[in-house]
Amino acid sequence: MINEQYTPEEPIAAIATALAPAALGIVRTSGKNAIDLASKCFSRPKALLEAAGNTLVYGWIIDPESKQKIDEVMAAVYKAPKSFTGEDMVEVFCHGGSSAVLGVYHALLDAGFRAAQKGEYTFRAFINGKADLTKAEAVREIIGAKTDESRSRAANRLQGALFSEINAVKEKLLKVLASIEVGIEYPEDEENISETFDDSLLRQAVEELKVLSSSWQAEKLYQDGAEVVLCGKTNAGKSSLFNLLLKEDRAIVSNIHGTTRDFIESYASFDGIPVRLFDTAGLRETEDEIEKVGVERTRELIQQSDAVLYVIDAACGFTDEDSEFLKSFTAKNAPTSEIPLLLVLNKIDKTEYKDAAECAAKIVAPQWKNLPVFGVSAKTSTGIQELAKATAAVLQKTCAASKEMVGLGSERQKNAVEEALESCNHALLCTKEGFTLDAAVQDIEDAVASLGELTGEVTSADILETVFSQFCVGK
Amino acid sequence: MINEQYTPEEPIAAIATALAPAALGIVRTSGKNAIDLASKCFSRPKALLEAAGNTLVYGWIIDPESKQKIDEVMAAVYKAPKSFTGEDMVEVFCHGGSSAVLGVYHALLDAGFRAAQKGEYTFRAFINGKADLTKAEAVREIIGAKTDESRSRAANRLQGALFSEINAVKEKLLKVLASIEVGIEYPEDEENISETFDDSLLRQAVEELKVLSSSWQAEKLYQDGAEVVLCGKTNAGKSSLFNLLLKEDRAIVSNIHGTTRDFIESYASFDGIPVRLFDTAGLRETEDEIEKVGVERTRELIQQSDAVLYVIDAACGFTDEDSEFLKSFTAKNAPTSEIPLLLVLNKIDKTEYKDAAECAAKIVAPQWKNLPVFGVSAKTSTGIQELAKATAAVLQKTCAASKEMVGLGSERQKNAVEEALESCNHALLCTKEGFTLDAAVQDIEDAVASLGELTGEVTSADILETVFSQFCVGK
Repeated sequence: MINEQYTPEEPIAAIATALAPAALGIVRTSGKNAIDLASKCFSRPKALLEAAGNTLVYGWIIDPESKQKIDEVMAAVYKAPKSFTGEDMVEVFCHGGSSAVLGVYHALLDAGFRAAQKGEYTFRAFINGKADLTKAEAVREIIGAKTDESRSRAANRLQGALFSEINAVKEKLLKVLASIEVGIEYPEDEENISETFDDSLLRQAVEELKVLSSSWQAEKLYQDGAEVVLCGKTNAGKSSLFNLLLKEDRAIVSNIHGTTRDFIESYASFDGIPVRLFDTAGLRETEDEIEKVGVERTRELIQQSDAVLYVIDAACGFTDEDSEFLKSFTAKNAPTSEIPLLLVLNKIDKTEYKDAAECAAKIVAPQWKNLPVFGVSAKTSTGIQELAKATAAVLQKTCAASKEMVGLGSERQKNAVEEALESCNHALLCTKEGFTLDAAVQDIEDAVASLGELTGEVTSADILETVFSQFCVGK
Repeated sequence: MINEQYTPEEPIAAIATALAPAALGIVRTSGKNAIDLASKCFSRPKALLEAAGNTLVYGWIIDPESKQKIDEVMAAVYKAPKSFTGEDMVEVFCHGGSSAVLGVYHALLDAGFRAAQKGEYTFRAFINGKADLTKAEAVREIIGAKTDESRSRAANRLQGALFSEINAVKEKLLKVLASIEVGIEYPEDEENISETFDDSLLRQAVEELKVLSSSWQAEKLYQDGAEVVLCGKTNAGKSSLFNLLLKEDRAIVSNIHGTTRDFIESYASFDGIPVRLFDTAGLRETEDEIEKVGVERTRELIQQSDAVLYVIDAACGFTDEDSEFLKSFTAKNAPTSEIPLLLVLNKIDKTEYKDAAECAAKIVAPQWKNLPVFGVSAKTSTGIQELAKATAAVLQKTCAASKEMVGLGSERQKNAVEEALESCNHALLCTKEGFTLDAAVQDIEDAVASLGELTGEVTSADILETVFSQFCVGK
């Protein structure tokens, strides 16, 4: 449990940067006597001990036993409560190689720090009143964000925007409670009190909670991303399109090449949504055994995807094979019938048509006219951005939330909001069905408690465990 | 060329930590107006502009155009000349996700910084007199160090130990020059001056340069590491040994599993030497086609290795197959005849012999008694450390340098030392063969110039290009 793992004030140390060759690395410490302990493996202990808060001290980290110099560093000193954790902290900025970072870390452990648990720094920030739970969770989101849009949404929560929204709802509920309690204490007509109760504020709260609750679906899309499959006949130009779509956005983070498999995947940003994009083997009837396996895998991939881009070579036109695929894909009892499908007419620069609309009108068979169609050219990059945006819009379609609002940042938050919503709805029912208001009071108090759990004003060890165990070490 | 790429004082920015999910990341900037520019994308510009050197300022990085908040950060302010580069610097400590780090970086570029070249920060430190070239190169070594020993040797050079050694030699040479010049200006017997010349100081310099030059071979071993192959019959216990050898040292950094191949490799530290250790398919005559390929690959691997550990199951004893392998391995015309071979008697805990020596005496066939033999038990961990140390000693055998001395840190330094050595030897020859001392003066001046190039007192654009282009961005 959380209380056994996390022992506030105890001096802790953790490596806060990735262990890969890089210019710089950070080892951070926190705790009541952090500065004192750090000075035991620092070449200029007096300078460190006498440093003011928020200052940097130059020196070497030395092995506290052998006195061997380990690395030349800058040590940042923070004094409680003016630090991330609210405790005294020393952050050591060393060289970025694994050996240097590990060397500094082990010297600090040898000096008396213990290895920090996951999320222990943010946990201390929380218990010391430096961050509520919505901010704490936003920190984790920012670290894991795959696109600028995902990070930006998390940054809003880190700024406290979600906390403010939740608080606004909570204040409405507290006002409702106050007005009911006045009614209970000074009843005019005790039997019918619920009939005279003005529930407009409670209804407002319910509407706001509904919007918040539905926001999670969209936020989840920005956090977890979606899977999009590029498919089509061989030589439709899928791979060129794949490469162009990947170059769309600077937020592309990592490449995974399924070199041993027959498809390639990579991360791209479609209008801020992190998309795992798959380039697949061309679909065709084949006698080649290995190719058959590839085509079969493409079909499996499609069944798991969130959207499919079906690529057609516009210069060759619509073929029977294309019709065949689309039929099997959209058939009512097909496992794929619910998956959004976009038709992509590639190589439109090679056709005689003046634009994508004319091209679509001319070559797409009548029964497929209801599908969304996009004309693109991988060669000239025409229409690529529009295709990415349209795909993003399709992915968002089922998500109600607008881009402007601050949504919820985690499943945990969503559950708390839904609990509050349920309690509020029950309170409304009580007032409508003529119960005494005492029942409604209990419900609204429950709702307030749920929102308190969301922000961390009311906490249980279980909730803290859930929140902080998802962090990386060093945060 | 270096002068076109590197434009000192111009404001530069670079991501200094690895782009992987981690608690924290660093984006560093340097240049004449670095603080001013950074304040343009900082939520508290006044606080940043008014900050004293070596202090930390809390705030948000904001997009200079859209004013959107990007990430909550601490900004470290350094004032020239008290900084790593010797210029004004701002280092931004942000959250560690790729999106956060890239977002902060792009905001700084949008504010007017240009992307830094590889090694540009260290280059500025060099031209501003904050580090000589031996220190600059030591920074790169520390970042790339694979074991604690490698890092520790580089740390000695970063402290200036190599610079001092080189300087000591140079001062000897300057003394020799001074004494010769006195001789030339006030000649007693101009014809025979070289006969009366006392060359003891020059000889000392030559000896020191020789030791320095030979140190590079050992240093190179610590930097680049060596390849060691574990081989032997099937079931000799190679894999258990492999796992134990890997656990030997905490400095193990990364694992590479050749999952698609028939051998496994991983990095280990053998007494501080970074060793790429290979576990191989058991050697045996086989009819199985796939296994045959595995055995063939093992043979290829052995031919490229720096040392081979041949593992024997001591409980089964020495077999004909073992003899067969050893014969083919050590045969005079075999490509492997020069590769050091260690015999490892595994599972000695299962034998009746009281120690490894007795076991070796009993089971190793007479013709192999001259090979180094080690008794180990993968089960009880007996003898594992000794085996690693002995292997390290074998790898170092051809390297003259002792562990205590500060060696050279790069091929470039070694070339400069060899040039100096050649010039000094030539000077000695001049004095011996009765030339006038003018010739010796020229040689010694050349030697001093070579040592000046080593430390960077005398530089050419080519040398700087060579040194700094090997850095990562952000250093």
